[in-house]
Amino acid sequence: MTEYLYGRWPVLESLRAGRRSFEQLLLAESMDEKGIVDTIQDAARQRGVNVRRVPRRVIDDLSKNANNQGIALRVGVYPYVDLDEILKTAREQGEHPFLLVLDLLKDPQNVGALLRVADSVGVHGIVLQERRGVDVTAAVVSASSGAVEHLNVTVVTNLVTAMRRLKEENIWLAGLDIGPDTLTLDKVDLNRPIALVMGSEGEGLRRLVRETCDLRITLPMRGHVASLNVATAGSIALYAAWQARGWQGWTPRVP
Amino acid sequence: MTEYLYGRWPVLESLRAGRRSFEQLLLAESMDEKGIVDTIQDAARQRGVNVRRVPRRVIDDLSKNANNQGIALRVGVYPYVDLDEILKTAREQGEHPFLLVLDLLKDPQNVGALLRVADSVGVHGIVLQERRGVDVTAAVVSASSGAVEHLNVTVVTNLVTAMRRLKEENIWLAGLDIGPDTLTLDKVDLNRPIALVMGSEGEGLRRLVRETCDLRITLPMRGHVASLNVATAGSIALYAAWQARGWQGWTPRVP
Repeated sequence: MTEYLYGRWPVLESLRAGRRSFEQLLLAESMDEKGIVDTIQDAARQRGVNVRRVPRRVIDDLSKNANNQGIALRVGVYPYVDLDEILKTAREQGEHPFLLVLDLLKDPQNVGALLRVADSVGVHGIVLQERRGVDVTAAVVSASSGAVEHLNVTVVTNLVTAMRRLKEENIWLAGLDIGPDTLTLDKVDLNRPIALVMGSEGEGLRRLVRETCDLRITLPMRGHVASLNVATAGSIALYAAWQARGWQGWTPRVP
Repeated sequence: MTEYLYGRWPVLESLRAGRRSFEQLLLAESMDEKGIVDTIQDAARQRGVNVRRVPRRVIDDLSKNANNQGIALRVGVYPYVDLDEILKTAREQGEHPFLLVLDLLKDPQNVGALLRVADSVGVHGIVLQERRGVDVTAAVVSASSGAVEHLNVTVVTNLVTAMRRLKEENIWLAGLDIGPDTLTLDKVDLNRPIALVMGSEGEGLRRLVRETCDLRITLPMRGHVASLNVATAGSIALYAAWQARGWQGWTPRVP
């Protein structure tokens, strides 16, 4: 099965990561080859990928009229991993496991935004519930600005079973939630093996998923509109967890 | 000048805030009056606003085919305030001033997302650069989920002049930035009179704006895709500042 990724960063990051099969790079005829387009063509050549010029409308069709910036890449399926691979990554990096678990999120924008932040804080892997939730579609790759091409993502048939497996590995399951019996972010020691669990837009965590969590954390809100988008709340929680880990693995860039 | 707000939460929050003039509430003929639609009609009646049923396509036209959920509200201009009003709000609440300054952001989605978080952490006001930046359009109201209807927003002709004014009031200007001479979020005492300053998508802070800041703070990033969306980065910084203030003004909800 093949699909089309689109947009400059998603296409470039996919080529850089090199984890899919690549079939063809399509560029709109009207594009000139400066800057990042040049970089993308170089990356394609290094992967032995054929480059073809086509009318812009072909790319618009293939990307279902998404904002494609005149670039599409025909690729093989997303390289999902299994849970063991994620745990192995943490071990190899010599770090406490740091995972993100998404329970039935529906909006590719939200999932993509969370994955971009997950990459930024260096999570070792992401666990997604199969079927009714979002999987890694081209829209998610796009919303993650290509970050997901570098990430370990596993899709499981039963999220609660996967969570129990993580418990056996001594990983704490922290559900992002509202309501009673929740602890604010700063009252929890996040510097330990941890999986942050996030519920769907609107409905939050499913009952069994919530009950399987070891603790539930919350973000205070004092506004008139007392709700946050799940991607916003999740981004704040991911950064709080990484800060608690002393920004482990961060090398400040010196330009 | 009138415009149309659209969508359930934006319309409801605008009516609740009651700071604009309201001319007419339009509901799609096909909508039934349960739940929030009922609440919106009640809120409209309390404000003495006429309610009219129209074909859905009328609302689609008025909202330029945005996701309007079959609801539009004809309103007067957004009630901008001046900088003094913002400082007065902080004084009246007996809190260190806490402001958000946006330098030429272009995307209404980003501005709206930031304003929603600004409401959530209780900032006393927002300063926007006039003209080339975004102002409070219906798209911004929508992206903020209606939060901006409750907020103090001022639009200034010269952002640097406004920043100097804030300095005279002993407010620290903290620019969110990357590169050398920046301090990570956790190395700065954010529990003081502060204005967080955020630059535009892609370009960041303009030179003079950057030079007018008292300090520049940064978010570490360790991923392959070393960039964050400005709304994401800003949301994290706003929450970090509020956390440093000990979640001032927060009353945990007990359902």
